[in-house]
Amino acid sequence: MKESAKKVEAITAMDQDFSQWYTDVVLKAELIDYSAVKGCMILRPYGYAIWENIQSSLDRRFKECGHENVAMPLFIPESLLQKEKDHVAGFAPEVAWVTQGGQETLSERLCIRPTSETLFCDHYSHVIQSWRDLPKLYNQWVSVVRWEKTTRPFLRSTEFYWQEGHTAHATADEAVAETLQMLDIYAAFYRDVLAIPVIKGKKTESEKFAGAVDTYTVEAMMHDGKALQSATSHYFGDGFARAFDIQFADQNNQLQYVHQTSWGLSTRSVGAIIMVHGDDNGLVLPPRVAPVQVMIIPIAAHKPGVIEAAETLRTELSQSYRVKIDSSDKMPGWKFSEYEMKGVPLRLELGPRDLEKNQCLAVRRDTGEKIALSLDTLTQSVSALLDDIHENLLNKAQERMDSRISSAADWDSFVRLVAEKPGFIRALWCGDPACEQTVKDETGATSRCIPFDQQPAEGLCICCQKKAKHMVIWGKAY
Amino acid sequence: MKESAKKVEAITAMDQDFSQWYTDVVLKAELIDYSAVKGCMILRPYGYAIWENIQSSLDRRFKECGHENVAMPLFIPESLLQKEKDHVAGFAPEVAWVTQGGQETLSERLCIRPTSETLFCDHYSHVIQSWRDLPKLYNQWVSVVRWEKTTRPFLRSTEFYWQEGHTAHATADEAVAETLQMLDIYAAFYRDVLAIPVIKGKKTESEKFAGAVDTYTVEAMMHDGKALQSATSHYFGDGFARAFDIQFADQNNQLQYVHQTSWGLSTRSVGAIIMVHGDDNGLVLPPRVAPVQVMIIPIAAHKPGVIEAAETLRTELSQSYRVKIDSSDKMPGWKFSEYEMKGVPLRLELGPRDLEKNQCLAVRRDTGEKIALSLDTLTQSVSALLDDIHENLLNKAQERMDSRISSAADWDSFVRLVAEKPGFIRALWCGDPACEQTVKDETGATSRCIPFDQQPAEGLCICCQKKAKHMVIWGKAY
Repeated sequence: MKESAKKVEAITAMDQDFSQWYTDVVLKAELIDYSAVKGCMILRPYGYAIWENIQSSLDRRFKECGHENVAMPLFIPESLLQKEKDHVAGFAPEVAWVTQGGQETLSERLCIRPTSETLFCDHYSHVIQSWRDLPKLYNQWVSVVRWEKTTRPFLRSTEFYWQEGHTAHATADEAVAETLQMLDIYAAFYRDVLAIPVIKGKKTESEKFAGAVDTYTVEAMMHDGKALQSATSHYFGDGFARAFDIQFADQNNQLQYVHQTSWGLSTRSVGAIIMVHGDDNGLVLPPRVAPVQVMIIPIAAHKPGVIEAAETLRTELSQSYRVKIDSSDKMPGWKFSEYEMKGVPLRLELGPRDLEKNQCLAVRRDTGEKIALSLDTLTQSVSALLDDIHENLLNKAQERMDSRISSAADWDSFVRLVAEKPGFIRALWCGDPACEQTVKDETGATSRCIPFDQQPAEGLCICCQKKAKHMVIWGKAY
Repeated sequence: MKESAKKVEAITAMDQDFSQWYTDVVLKAELIDYSAVKGCMILRPYGYAIWENIQSSLDRRFKECGHENVAMPLFIPESLLQKEKDHVAGFAPEVAWVTQGGQETLSERLCIRPTSETLFCDHYSHVIQSWRDLPKLYNQWVSVVRWEKTTRPFLRSTEFYWQEGHTAHATADEAVAETLQMLDIYAAFYRDVLAIPVIKGKKTESEKFAGAVDTYTVEAMMHDGKALQSATSHYFGDGFARAFDIQFADQNNQLQYVHQTSWGLSTRSVGAIIMVHGDDNGLVLPPRVAPVQVMIIPIAAHKPGVIEAAETLRTELSQSYRVKIDSSDKMPGWKFSEYEMKGVPLRLELGPRDLEKNQCLAVRRDTGEKIALSLDTLTQSVSALLDDIHENLLNKAQERMDSRISSAADWDSFVRLVAEKPGFIRALWCGDPACEQTVKDETGATSRCIPFDQQPAEGLCICCQKKAKHMVIWGKAY
């Protein structure tokens, strides 16, 4: 009875307190547990399984375009971190330092990697000598540490999980093409796998990565209208190459500096899934990353043939999907709310009457719709339903985002929109960081990106009324 | 020309200097690079791909028997590490300590996990309340850090990669069964995937894991006769449960402590592959974890049809195997030694004359044997050859190990065997740690395990001549 009592407690309604709703969902769907270290989360099996599915899908996409995985050390000696000036200025204030190893005090502090550009650069300086050694298209799946003051599961934690790609190329053109290719891969992954639409664009100077020439981003909109920077791709030019002396002999035997990129997507993406698709009954998982795509619930399981029939369904569907069966002695009603909370895309109920009719009852998590499915064509029906759930989630998210993108022609309408309509605001900007800072200080909205779609880009900066350089998307952000 | 010059340098012969041979192989086969941090290695793409194949094969085996992956934090607060007394005594002297986070000095030091029992126990104390919550069968794939004074790539490094399984059970019997099941999985994995025979046994009291009731091990023999502890599985009883207060209400509503296990296999396994199968031409990879199982080399590639035919082979074989084609402008001879150094199990040479005969020439890395294969039945032939290479590597390793296991009936013959015949020695022991220490101090050989195969176990301790308790396998070890 303890479990069913636990589940009867409803979670906080989104409209009432979105932040508390989020915390309720991550805990009650058993995605995470808090750990003994402030700001570090434990990924429980259900939460980690989502991340594993994200990893395997993205990793396949990376490998298809020639990337290889490697493993760099966890530690960066302080002197190595300091080699590129902008980079160290950006990261040094927020790293964790190892000062003792075993019984000895270290002669040089080691930081726990907050990101690994410096380690990849040091390695590239060893292994790149000739044009034949290029390009290097490396990636790693690791955790990194940034000493954050305020943390939230998945969105901002002291330790978090990500992939970081680091590439080196013979020319600037190749490196820029790689940067944009990876941004496209992220955008396609969000759309096609997580059912989340994103806006592609470039970060402003003040928002770009420490050490980058250009930072590109995909920005998604959460249920409450706030933005989540969902993945970034950086073009470094030859700045790191000069700092780390990464040169190669070209085909004319002339020494050249390489041009580099890096790009990353993290466990923040799980936060995006929760905040884009979730509802007042809990998590709603996009089928392509759901740890359990189909949950089979036997009804009146003590009746002859029910459990056996449910097992037969499971075996059949397991050929194509991630399927589980819950034949525990808990009440069906408890099971329904449990797997609703956990966001399982499709529930199949199977009882004696269904068996008589050679059918089962499918219940969609996204719409609540109940559909009787013939057992003869079940695999095809499930396939079509899961695809339809994906499309429906994507369309709903796209509609919500579209309905919350506004345009502001002047300061007053901008201020009013920020206050009254949570979402993204398209507004012109002169390019001066001072104006960007004024917007942030006065309204709390930050520049999310300079979107690739720039029209209309003619007019005056909403802040200083000078001639505008860019159309910018602004919004409050996680 | 630079590459071919580089490759012409032969590696050190095994017989001349086994340790230098090992270093030559890990560097020239491009498995690792040294990093800026002492004792931390960089796993390069070829080295990491072997580890990825090990991971995917083992992970599938773990999941088949119900284990789930999770992610625990990197950090352990000092107070948490200290909760189990034997455990902290074993690990505290060799951990790295974080003392500063961002700009602040931490009020409590955090160690980088050397192993994660304490983190799992802390989490289990939160999530285990009822018998319905058991068993918990968790695993994670992470790196851990131990501040080692002398390090060697894969065998002993400050940071290394592993999986650590941690389980909690309602009864001691279940936990013991889990401990032995995982040992069997490791032994089967070594035999069936890495083509390495191992000896299963129990560690003596002085060699067991800090905090364990019993530690079980699989021990493999390297090419030089030394032992490598290749994976371990620990039974904890309820010691950690009492220290961390992990109790559950049983079916009679009585509070009980859980019984726990942990088990791990690390990147040491890559060291085992190198030192068991390698030869004077470099690496020899067992086919089931080789990143490239078949390398196709076009001969006289400028002749019409050769490249196209090679591409057709690649496409066909890629359905079933990890296949690459090297159609670069390097000389075939350079390519042959390059992929021998890298241990690719099978090379397929394809030139104009082969095409005329509708065949290609297969060259086995393990035996050097050359076999003409009809293109009509290539996939089946390659399948049979890769299986045969696996069997041959396993048999050779088994024969070498068998030929180097000796028995010593008394102290003098024991000492002579250690000095004259590198390998394992079966000898009786009274069970007294003082005798075990004497053997180590006088001969350099350590107790590898008390093998499951105990016969003959009657007689006198080779050290003190008192009545023996156990037949022990002794040897020098990495």
